[in-house]
Amino acid sequence: MKTKAIFYHAGCPVCVAAEQNVANALDAGRFNLEIVHLGTEKSRVAEAEGSGVKSVPALVLHGVAYHINFGAGIEALK
Amino acid sequence: MKTKAIFYHAGCPVCVAAEQNVANALDAGRFNLEIVHLGTEKSRVAEAEGSGVKSVPALVLHGVAYHINFGAGIEALK
Repeated sequence: MKTKAIFYHAGCPVCVAAEQNVANALDAGRFNLEIVHLGTEKSRVAEAEGSGVKSVPALVLHGVAYHINFGAGIEALK
Repeated sequence: MKTKAIFYHAGCPVCVAAEQNVANALDAGRFNLEIVHLGTEKSRVAEAEGSGVKSVPALVLHGVAYHINFGAGIEALK
């Protein structure tokens, strides 16, 4: 069974680079990658925060948030 | 031909988690992953800095540094 991976972003340039280079580098054979744009899916900000996401872009793997560089703080997306 | 990926770390808990969960999630069919411990391989700190690494853990993909959370600043590893 594949592991769920969620990449949260906000469409910023830092986010786009991280999506293209890091999120898309994940092994598709082992991970089901979901891309969530918190700028347009604000209803999922609380979910992201619950996983420990403090800024975007961030990748949540095994329920743990890995912040990749810094695009925007999550407070700015509420 | 596989893309070179370099994961720089310093053995810290944040580094180990990022290595196990993010670096090891990369698609081995597309990436040749090299793991570099800058605490023990200080001769490679300059190389990391040249790729834009400012803190560890960091993943360099396509020559660009992606800092994953924050374990230690690179200045502390010199």
